Amino acid sequence: MSAENPAITAFRVRKVSVAGAANEVSDVTAREEPLEIRVEGRSVAVVMRTPGHDEELATGFLVSEGVVQGPRDILEVSQCPSTGNSKGNIVDVLLGGAVVNWDSLTRHVFSASSCGLCGKTSIESVFQRFPAVQGDWTVTPALIASLPDKLRAAQKTFAQTGGLHASGLFDLDGNLLVLREDVGRHNALDKILGYALQRGLLPLDRHILLVSGRVSFEIIQKALAGGIALVAAISAPSSLAVEFAQEANQTLIGFLRGETMNVYTHPQRVETIS
Amino acid sequence: MSAENPAITAFRVRKVSVAGAANEVSDVTAREEPLEIRVEGRSVAVVMRTPGHDEELATGFLVSEGVVQGPRDILEVSQCPSTGNSKGNIVDVLLGGAVVNWDSLTRHVFSASSCGLCGKTSIESVFQRFPAVQGDWTVTPALIASLPDKLRAAQKTFAQTGGLHASGLFDLDGNLLVLREDVGRHNALDKILGYALQRGLLPLDRHILLVSGRVSFEIIQKALAGGIALVAAISAPSSLAVEFAQEANQTLIGFLRGETMNVYTHPQRVETIS
Repeated sequence: MSAENPAITAFRVRKVSVAGAANEVSDVTAREEPLEIRVEGRSVAVVMRTPGHDEELATGFLVSEGVVQGPRDILEVSQCPSTGNSKGNIVDVLLGGAVVNWDSLTRHVFSASSCGLCGKTSIESVFQRFPAVQGDWTVTPALIASLPDKLRAAQKTFAQTGGLHASGLFDLDGNLLVLREDVGRHNALDKILGYALQRGLLPLDRHILLVSGRVSFEIIQKALAGGIALVAAISAPSSLAVEFAQEANQTLIGFLRGETMNVYTHPQRVETIS
Repeated sequence: MSAENPAITAFRVRKVSVAGAANEVSDVTAREEPLEIRVEGRSVAVVMRTPGHDEELATGFLVSEGVVQGPRDILEVSQCPSTGNSKGNIVDVLLGGAVVNWDSLTRHVFSASSCGLCGKTSIESVFQRFPAVQGDWTVTPALIASLPDKLRAAQKTFAQTGGLHASGLFDLDGNLLVLREDVGRHNALDKILGYALQRGLLPLDRHILLVSGRVSFEIIQKALAGGIALVAAISAPSSLAVEFAQEANQTLIGFLRGETMNVYTHPQRVETIS
């Protein structure tokens, strides 16, 4: 682990050319380690994540699960000391009176890098129940188009490793409020939800989420858990993300690159002249 | 669903310019739907996947879990008929005498698009136990560098949607044996493992795996489950993928682009002149 940045790990690698020339160089990779999330001492999930902002990740995960909604629902978040193989990668969340469906929550037994939905036992239970978002406001296409450059400017670790997903939360004036990076795109978003929870900002119904990659079903559902009405992505959405956003009253924008963007759902929040 | 291609879904989208001009166009997205995997009638996982090659996905998932190793371990794979919300997205696998640890397997309750490791209850149990790979052979850097173009040429759906991960299995002469695409990178690899299982090709110790994106811990572990000794990726590996490959005697190559590649572990399989 880098002493300066816990999000990266340096390795000696062999850089090889097509012609067969080789030389040893130093390369930094995005750090990936398991984090066990406990609620009141009970293990509810292990996520493969990039270390850093672990308390946000744990609390944001519980926002995504519908367990907590505001700062009062969390009494304390503590990082457990290192024991054996765990290297201190354990976070315990004490709840402030929130009612927990343990049967449902403890089925979350392993969430991999990009998995935010472990814990469902059948297709019918995949879909969480959150209310559709609010938000009658509009923004200009020019404002939306300005967001990717702001995200990239703030994305310091990615510039080093090429291996991290980023999520950025913006206000309706296009100001970046918080950026989080992680090997798992779902973790980056959970960290943002945890950040917002701790500051009493939920629901995020006057905010814009920008993600660096693609938008899957899980991403759009986590955004709904946070009440986010506009989700923009540099890359493509999946079919289910589009269908879900349509149902949830969320504006979903993909391929936000260069001079254009594709508005897949609820275009009424994007001001146009034609 | 497209009648021609079950892997894509077309939507009408609003293409908006920075200046505010808008017009309606048709856009195709990568299809994402849940698939419930059952073993002998018992639900063991729900994965978010792109429809197609579902039987390979289900059997490859069981390879990754260490439940099956050869074609004789599978008696029958059947797609269940549509009922209610399930739209026929259920596959049941009948085993041919393989011994199942149900406690471990049924903890796999939800695997999202990119999640291949649901089902572990603590950090210690994240790491599956598979033997280190064999493989004393070598290949030239020129052969490895030729693989991405072959993968892209065969990647028809990605060209349409921009939203699918691809995995390609090559022999040591650089011939593409099978390509699979999916919204989840782990699913694409599981489909390849299922393909190999059904044809009696496991372990894949004289093969090369090329993945279109990044290499996480789960990808390299699934490759190990299939006995794959050389994993190459267009993009970056995570720190844990590098550490795991080192332990498992796997050659891990990242940033396979243009004229160079980074060999992170076990470079003895890549012929060099210096």
